Amino acid sequence: MQLLSTCYLFLGLSESQLDRLAAITTETRIQKGKWLFFEGEEAEELYVLKEGAVELMTKVDDDFELPIAMLRDPGSCFGTSALVAPHVYSLSARCADGGSVVAIRQGDLHKLIQEDRDLGCTVMTNWAEHLLNRLKDNRQQLRIHFKTLFQTMHS
Amino acid sequence: MQLLSTCYLFLGLSESQLDRLAAITTETRIQKGKWLFFEGEEAEELYVLKEGAVELMTKVDDDFELPIAMLRDPGSCFGTSALVAPHVYSLSARCADGGSVVAIRQGDLHKLIQEDRDLGCTVMTNWAEHLLNRLKDNRQQLRIHFKTLFQTMHS
Repeated sequence: MQLLSTCYLFLGLSESQLDRLAAITTETRIQKGKWLFFEGEEAEELYVLKEGAVELMTKVDDDFELPIAMLRDPGSCFGTSALVAPHVYSLSARCADGGSVVAIRQGDLHKLIQEDRDLGCTVMTNWAEHLLNRLKDNRQQLRIHFKTLFQTMHS
Repeated sequence: MQLLSTCYLFLGLSESQLDRLAAITTETRIQKGKWLFFEGEEAEELYVLKEGAVELMTKVDDDFELPIAMLRDPGSCFGTSALVAPHVYSLSARCADGGSVVAIRQGDLHKLIQEDRDLGCTVMTNWAEHLLNRLKDNRQQLRIHFKTLFQTMHS
């Protein structure tokens, strides 16, 4: 499937590995405003955006959701918490613009990773690289925050 | 090697995989105050702490290093940026208490992961799980920050 090969998680997979992956996907239409999942729920599926837009957010208070990311590019993935134990979504996802997503069930993906360790190693390496970059971004924000604080204290 | 099996990165490896890993390690004494590496440098080695203490920090300004973590438990690892491209340390590491570390050269580890994809998949899964938890911690801090801000605005 063309879409899967554009997702950062699946970069470097062979044609036959992409085919095996495509075989365990299901495509679903999503409607604007619909919640795909909530943080704290069991991460049953990993999603790849095909069309439309999905907003990721985290609950700060009963009436305040903090936006984390807006996904619009086809091939963007979310619900990656499905990739590791304890398989619990750490963010909520809501459809911001109608379209469609490709879903991969956690159990099917786990089975594929157990059977094809080369595929597993590639996917997990891609994911770790992505997570490391996210952590670096966060640290950069922290650095800017402390630099400002430091300059304020010394001005 | 007993020490490697206690490192979160290597949990789940078989005895023979741990033996192959141990074969590419070198042990080095570290002296208090000595820098092991600086952020921005090429990540040539991944380290596992054997004895002593290592402090991880990031540079905010020419005369201000922000502490990120203090590692004291044998089996703690650092310099994990060596695990993925572009292989650049994102933090600096300084010995806070004399002791010893076990080092694994990036090139040797990469070769082992290429040769043994099951080992690679296990290590990368462990690392991704760790990075995801770090990201969740950061997000929790952000959540607390916004909750405080939100309460201040509404009090």
